[in-house]
Amino acid sequence: ILAAGGYASASSSLQEAASNPAQWVMPTGDYANQRYSKLDKINKDNVGSMVPAWTFSTGVLRGHEGNPLVVGDTMYVHTPFPNIVYALDLNNDGVIKWRYEPKQDPNVIPVMCCDTVNRGVAYAPGEGDTPPMIILHQADTSVVALNADTGEQIWSVQNGDPSKGETGTAAPMVVKDKVYVGISGGEFGVRGSLTAYNLSDGKQAWRAYSTGPDDEMLMDPEKTMSLGKPVGKDSSLNTWEGDQWQIGGGTTWGWFAYDPDLNLVYYGTGNPSTWNPSQRPGDNKWSMTIMARDADTGMAKWVYQMTPHDEWDFDGVNEMILADIPVNGEDRKALVHFDRNGFAYTLDRETGELLVAKKYDPAVNWATEVVMDKNSDQYGRPQVVAEYSTEQNGEDVNTTGICPAALGTKDQQPASFSPKTGLFYVPTNHVCMDYEPFRVAYTAGQPYVGATLSMYPAPNSHGGMGNFIAWDAGTGEIKWSLPEQFSVWSGALATAGDVVFYGTLEGYLKAVDAQTGDELYSFKTPSGIIGNVMTYENQGKQYVGILSGIGGWAGIGLAAGLTDPNAGLGAVGGYAALSNYTALGGQLTVFTVP
Amino acid sequence: ILAAGGYASASSSLQEAASNPAQWVMPTGDYANQRYSKLDKINKDNVGSMVPAWTFSTGVLRGHEGNPLVVGDTMYVHTPFPNIVYALDLNNDGVIKWRYEPKQDPNVIPVMCCDTVNRGVAYAPGEGDTPPMIILHQADTSVVALNADTGEQIWSVQNGDPSKGETGTAAPMVVKDKVYVGISGGEFGVRGSLTAYNLSDGKQAWRAYSTGPDDEMLMDPEKTMSLGKPVGKDSSLNTWEGDQWQIGGGTTWGWFAYDPDLNLVYYGTGNPSTWNPSQRPGDNKWSMTIMARDADTGMAKWVYQMTPHDEWDFDGVNEMILADIPVNGEDRKALVHFDRNGFAYTLDRETGELLVAKKYDPAVNWATEVVMDKNSDQYGRPQVVAEYSTEQNGEDVNTTGICPAALGTKDQQPASFSPKTGLFYVPTNHVCMDYEPFRVAYTAGQPYVGATLSMYPAPNSHGGMGNFIAWDAGTGEIKWSLPEQFSVWSGALATAGDVVFYGTLEGYLKAVDAQTGDELYSFKTPSGIIGNVMTYENQGKQYVGILSGIGGWAGIGLAAGLTDPNAGLGAVGGYAALSNYTALGGQLTVFTVP
Ligand SMILES: O=C(O)c1cc(C(=O)O)c2c(n1)C(=O)C(=O)c1cc(C(=O)O)[nH]c1-2
Ligand SMILES: O=C(O)c1cc(C(=O)O)c2c(n1)C(=O)C(=O)c1cc(C(=O)O)[nH]c1-2
Repeated sequence: ILAAGGYASASSSLQEAASNPAQWVMPTGDYANQRYSKLDKINKDNVGSMVPAWTFSTGVLRGHEGNPLVVGDTMYVHTPFPNIVYALDLNNDGVIKWRYEPKQDPNVIPVMCCDTVNRGVAYAPGEGDTPPMIILHQADTSVVALNADTGEQIWSVQNGDPSKGETGTAAPMVVKDKVYVGISGGEFGVRGSLTAYNLSDGKQAWRAYSTGPDDEMLMDPEKTMSLGKPVGKDSSLNTWEGDQWQIGGGTTWGWFAYDPDLNLVYYGTGNPSTWNPSQRPGDNKWSMTIMARDADTGMAKWVYQMTPHDEWDFDGVNEMILADIPVNGEDRKALVHFDRNGFAYTLDRETGELLVAKKYDPAVNWATEVVMDKNSDQYGRPQVVAEYSTEQNGEDVNTTGICPAALGTKDQQPASFSPKTGLFYVPTNHVCMDYEPFRVAYTAGQPYVGATLSMYPAPNSHGGMGNFIAWDAGTGEIKWSLPEQFSVWSGALATAGDVVFYGTLEGYLKAVDAQTGDELYSFKTPSGIIGNVMTYENQGKQYVGILSGIGGWAGIGLAAGLTDPNAGLGAVGGYAALSNYTALGGQLTVFTVP
Repeated sequence: ILAAGGYASASSSLQEAASNPAQWVMPTGDYANQRYSKLDKINKDNVGSMVPAWTFSTGVLRGHEGNPLVVGDTMYVHTPFPNIVYALDLNNDGVIKWRYEPKQDPNVIPVMCCDTVNRGVAYAPGEGDTPPMIILHQADTSVVALNADTGEQIWSVQNGDPSKGETGTAAPMVVKDKVYVGISGGEFGVRGSLTAYNLSDGKQAWRAYSTGPDDEMLMDPEKTMSLGKPVGKDSSLNTWEGDQWQIGGGTTWGWFAYDPDLNLVYYGTGNPSTWNPSQRPGDNKWSMTIMARDADTGMAKWVYQMTPHDEWDFDGVNEMILADIPVNGEDRKALVHFDRNGFAYTLDRETGELLVAKKYDPAVNWATEVVMDKNSDQYGRPQVVAEYSTEQNGEDVNTTGICPAALGTKDQQPASFSPKTGLFYVPTNHVCMDYEPFRVAYTAGQPYVGATLSMYPAPNSHGGMGNFIAWDAGTGEIKWSLPEQFSVWSGALATAGDVVFYGTLEGYLKAVDAQTGDELYSFKTPSGIIGNVMTYENQGKQYVGILSGIGGWAGIGLAAGLTDPNAGLGAVGGYAALSNYTALGGQLTVFTVP
């Protein structure tokens, strides 16, 4: 048992570990979610001669999201359900040091909305008597701390109840003496929350719900701010009919960020449940919201709801990238967020002030703009186009041609930021949809969706379903855009070598010039890529690692063997052609320049 | 419907196709089973700079045996159960042209003795109205002809009955207007047979059993020869007690070879059932036998039983390699066979004359020699060492230290032959065993094994479980031997580039110098390799392809999730350390020199 405060410096030692570019110690690379590496041995001049150095099959099929960690000479690789963790010896072509395979009830699989994905494990440096740990967030919501050296289980705690549709897919984040864990299940009426557990013993430190009474949301009516004003009393309860907030979604299955100077943790909340907007009048706060919380107490410092009263399943969970960049000529401590709804937001991450909100795909049509006039009663709100309002068109009416589709202009696939170029590199979807809401009754553990969807490439465009873009978050402009046949469901990596990496659903790992977007390298990995590119150095050589394994929402047809075009919450039809390019898998490919 | 004889030239056109080194049109590379390629763009001088060119995940886990075919610009990739077949476009990084997935009852899995393996599909060139076809031999013994251009099923025929333990793992072979199909199930008392089906319509042309009455074996008591003498009447029935031959094994799950000049097809038969020798007195003919049959009629021309009255499960199915080589100074039309029992046999393939029989691993101890004196009543018989006779030691006695183990000095992993060096390159096991027979009753569809085994590396040697050797079949000598930590369960490839390729159970693809055995290249593929290396040329570039996917008998612990050391017919304990090196997978890696 650790003395209180024994972990006081854990986050700083983790941050220190993250600042060594030879390692990759957090799922997101660093607390700022930049997914940027200072390594430059692989660079735009030599990346064309990059080759696979070694490979590793995870022994698991279906969607492989996230990326391995590298701590010292050890790589930690996780898998989708059943959530195996491998510790691989980097000095020895990935020989397996240890392997942890939890026993999980497979009944959790049917309550995972978007494949059996898992976005990665977290690393906690050792401190005092507590050894370094790997924290695994299982599909069944168990949070397990493993000894990083041996794989032995140190503690385990249950974060939710899969029989109610609560599942785990998000990567945990370690800050100081705590680990943050999100929850999935917006399509099952799960009430979202962020929970902090003590690293020392797995005890719950606090839980902050996305909806409900102020105290359960850890919101202070006076001190929690939204667009410059206190949120006021019952800010969530006021925006729901009756106790709908209890089954109102706002889940927290995306990425977390942390600013050590401000001691704030950032994340987004998901869609309100059900997908039939007529069933839940009101703004449905604080679904679809960027949250900034005190990292120690969980108290909300500021919040911003991007899509009040969602009518399209535009989950707000996408990552928050923290970057100090010029905005309208002024250096700002910015938070940049590429939302599912097709707007890219730049906010002041200290105050939550909205600085920029611009479409990052010209196809976006459900709203004309986000109002930036602080004096308008619409300030900060998207202006919905009636034609694409599934609420206004009503239940049992098929609203057609909405862009983006429910999986957004971007989904879980994280963007990266290069401080060298000042640009954000964003894997995007270029997909539109038809959406027909219908009335649905809530039954615990049963789908609570209430809409039939179909998806297709954005019309009158290049015919593909994705773009990989470079974005200037200070001005809200696309610098360049690379068309892709399918959505880019892989996380990007930018490096000091002026190279940006990403993967494609067909399975290509690509490297492009950070300035121009010119393709410098491409390799067909075994299966479609929905993992995130990472890099590390070992024995003086730089390596680039990527998980292949088609799946996730975009690949659900292949992953779950579905063929009805409307199945998989509407994604199967749109991505049907994927089966011409790739098959299921689960592999790590590690590249280097010889 | 084809006119009779419509296929008269099919084998010659297949042979012609095989003679084009850009293609790989038979599982075995050519009818002679040499697994030799005339391609030399990848050669001993540049193979060190070989790199993966593209990769493909099959979407299936467990043991991936065999190798893809290449016909023109198309590659055909098969998988273990459920036996998917993919046609990949070689001009386009393996884009999927078509995909065939049979629906099979998974109840076949538990009656597959040694993992859910499949050793490959056969190709039949089109002729007349019949399109080019891919012949798939499924686990459930269905033999299916697919249109090679579209994947559409043309015909399907059932070769056996899985409810009796009859399964399919062997690759079919196409000769003229027929396709030959073997059967598995020696561990279930299945009576082995070779069956020829008409390519035109899938109708059975003939079936030749390994045991039983002469007419069912397609043997002529006067004309079928064994070691220079007619086999005589009831040659099989005489060597079994009662009707034990009906459940007596002699299955045919290995590779087939064909000599177009002699019009003979060659293959070996498996172990007699049960593994408890005391239960089946007699020589148990014609289990454990090399068969030479007329390719048109199936009539046996000559036979040679290598291990009469097997006491160790030394299945005789390993491939027959046809090569014209000097033996004792004289040029011979030889057949070379590396048997499970640890002896490498060189015979005259026209007459069945025994020319050489020598141990190809010095560890082999169960027999001192094979008697070569034609005048001896022991001519052609191995001289069993009493200490290692599980029959003489008796039921319920654990005979220890037998070398090789039941999986032999070599199992299904095929060797290759280089006409350039005159050497055979043999992936071997270096494993010994304890073997305790016990009485067992026959029940259809239930294991009929009757022995408990444990396996371990050959004692007093290099500590590893395998060697990769070069063998002179004219003299019966090992030229060089490369120790390996695990058995080499992968098939070898020799090329005109003076390189020999093989894979390891850890997952390494290795290239060695054909003359010296010096290692020239090594790459860690995603999963352990039990597939066979093949090569082809596309658009002027040579490629080397290998399937990864740990499994087979050696990898059954990983493949089936077994941990009891005696499980998996004794293989689990011996190969337990494999789990430190690799995990399940199913990937094709295609290499080239940039
Ligand atoms: O509302 C939720 O709780 C929830 C959970 C998840 C998840 O945990 O994977 C996804 C979504 N929603 C979702 O809307 C979505 O688009 C999505 C995509 C993916 C994926 O991994 O590809 N997961 C999820
Ligand atoms: O007796 C039989 O019918 C039979 C079948 C098979 C098979 O079909 O895979 C094997 C064996 N026996 C066998 O003895 C054996 O060593 C073996 C190894 C393997 C393999 O694929 O690794 N299969 C088999």
